[in-house]
Amino acid sequence: MAALPHPEPLSGESYSAVELGLRDDEVILLDQRYLPSEERYLRLTRTAQVAEAIRSMVVRGAPAIGITAAYGMVLAAAEAEAADAPALLQAAAQQLKETRPTAVNLAWAVDRMLALVPSTSRSALRSAFAAEARAIHREDVAACRKMGALGAEHVPDGATILTHCNAGALATGGYGTALGVIRAARDAGKRVRVLADETRPYLQGARLTAWELHKSGIAVEVICDGGSGYWFGRGEITLSVVGADRIAANGDVANKIGTYTVACLSLLHARPFYVAAPWSTVDLACPSGAQIPIEFRDAREMTDVPFADLERADRASRAQSEPGSAPPNEIQAHPAGRQRWVPDGVGVLNPAFDVTPAAYVTRLFTERGVFSPAQLRQGAQPGGGA
Amino acid sequence: MAALPHPEPLSGESYSAVELGLRDDEVILLDQRYLPSEERYLRLTRTAQVAEAIRSMVVRGAPAIGITAAYGMVLAAAEAEAADAPALLQAAAQQLKETRPTAVNLAWAVDRMLALVPSTSRSALRSAFAAEARAIHREDVAACRKMGALGAEHVPDGATILTHCNAGALATGGYGTALGVIRAARDAGKRVRVLADETRPYLQGARLTAWELHKSGIAVEVICDGGSGYWFGRGEITLSVVGADRIAANGDVANKIGTYTVACLSLLHARPFYVAAPWSTVDLACPSGAQIPIEFRDAREMTDVPFADLERADRASRAQSEPGSAPPNEIQAHPAGRQRWVPDGVGVLNPAFDVTPAAYVTRLFTERGVFSPAQLRQGAQPGGGA
Repeated sequence: MAALPHPEPLSGESYSAVELGLRDDEVILLDQRYLPSEERYLRLTRTAQVAEAIRSMVVRGAPAIGITAAYGMVLAAAEAEAADAPALLQAAAQQLKETRPTAVNLAWAVDRMLALVPSTSRSALRSAFAAEARAIHREDVAACRKMGALGAEHVPDGATILTHCNAGALATGGYGTALGVIRAARDAGKRVRVLADETRPYLQGARLTAWELHKSGIAVEVICDGGSGYWFGRGEITLSVVGADRIAANGDVANKIGTYTVACLSLLHARPFYVAAPWSTVDLACPSGAQIPIEFRDAREMTDVPFADLERADRASRAQSEPGSAPPNEIQAHPAGRQRWVPDGVGVLNPAFDVTPAAYVTRLFTERGVFSPAQLRQGAQPGGGA
Repeated sequence: MAALPHPEPLSGESYSAVELGLRDDEVILLDQRYLPSEERYLRLTRTAQVAEAIRSMVVRGAPAIGITAAYGMVLAAAEAEAADAPALLQAAAQQLKETRPTAVNLAWAVDRMLALVPSTSRSALRSAFAAEARAIHREDVAACRKMGALGAEHVPDGATILTHCNAGALATGGYGTALGVIRAARDAGKRVRVLADETRPYLQGARLTAWELHKSGIAVEVICDGGSGYWFGRGEITLSVVGADRIAANGDVANKIGTYTVACLSLLHARPFYVAAPWSTVDLACPSGAQIPIEFRDAREMTDVPFADLERADRASRAQSEPGSAPPNEIQAHPAGRQRWVPDGVGVLNPAFDVTPAAYVTRLFTERGVFSPAQLRQGAQPGGGA
């Protein structure tokens, strides 16, 4: 268990999914693949490493990868100060955007950085980018707190809340979207109990949501994904709340695979299904869920025993490195498990996201207000929302 | 990969979940916890070992554990020939029945054996029990073939079929219930494609259904449990078919956790949801699903990396045993994983089954005919069904 190597994290927690080093020269990432076994940080100094970290799920969650990409652009700006800035920054932006296709926050954050280029002198690029990236980070935490407070009004005292995947501090700049709603309800004095879907194949619920809620003293129990129907059927689930990777203009919501199943169960059992997301997740240029690209990930996430070999690979890599060498700054590829769970020759379908139609969404919680999907466009209007 | 140590398996396959040795002195079990990595058989000579094998999920699936328990009673009968038969047999029956509470086939098979006791001389117990247990086994395979043929008429050519857990040859005497329907459809010349839910926590879909369908040359792809909603939403699933652990008199169906979620998705997407099960699974004494006991299993099935340590534990046990020693006949406890997936201190809820209300079930396929849940009692009538 290593401490966060940053004295003033913007996350507002003792841990952080992502921070920019104080000298703007490194991106600090919690390697979430090791959780809950180990709290382990990577310190990355090159944009290519940051891109690989996003691709490899060292960091995940739409807002968090947006912030990470913005910080990755700071590293690119440092390189660009001594080179052909526009071309280098465009290449870095492209590299970062290509890492994951579904979350819109990634492109949104990178484009926000690129917008600074025309008005910034080359020598000021790094500091301008660092300031803007930190602003994105701070705004995200503030947005989480705001939507949390708004969403918490929809959580009754004594609620049992189902959540899927991890939409918490680990998936954002800090505080969390769906888990921010739960934190805010608890902080408002409401008794809440959380059922966390384990969320195959990557187990973000079992590993990450359970970890951060437990750390915050919020009652959480893990269930398997297929098990949520059982608890709905018994009437034990008051409401569901999840995050989002992209929200289309019509209110359709792309989120972690399995979310649509939770929405279907909510509808059939007449329980509210809430989505909490910052406005940076809303893509008004995308007319409906049908236009959201769905990432299909490596079959090995499902066929092999995940994570079990991380410690072994880590021991091997430590054994190879010099005593007293610097902290790790290379991303290991997803390690192949020693034992496969799926027979050789059998195909696996591993879409990483699904789309929940707007009609299944009771309310969207954003920092600009609480909307029904039909009201979503109001958030784009001045004075809209709330 | 070891060959099935039995020359004439009743399963009708090159492998078998369970067989009785030709000399009625051992129960041969495929240790399904090692699949798909290794086809490994246990040869058990004592009733207590058989009970432990059922409890430990060496063998699972309602019909298969019923047959296994019947064979376990043969071992008890052998001991009873030299002792106080009725008391010893009652104790063995109790021991076997207590292993798993939800599947009714277990008690049904054991009671069918006990019914022989009053009319059988002590010296003939073993052979009478062996004959009856083999009859149960043969009848189960025949029932699977019959319900498969009946059910296959409901499978259109070109169907994409969702199945949950494993209701195949590995879960029965042979051929399978839900997978029997799929086999029969394929054997009738229909093109079928199967999506197998991986079925957390024990991964019976990913490990077992994929293994046996692939072995039979039936196209199968594995999806994660949360992912089935995605494929329903895209209209790619033609129908679902699952097995059952107990069917109540009103048509409510207890089956592997996650089944109810599949039924809900089927209802919401207006796709048929079929249940295939032998009549031994029908419990007319149980009025509804509310009276079916639901087993909660060890949290470690969900918190720890399963199976990963089986090979290691096996190597260790081989290293300790003498060269040339007999095949393993001891059951290893579920091995603790080296790495936990759920943080220490976080609770886990692990109900192993759920109940699907009769209203969600399109048709029940049994060897006595195809019924709507409301027609179920017809199967108990002479001449009923078909």
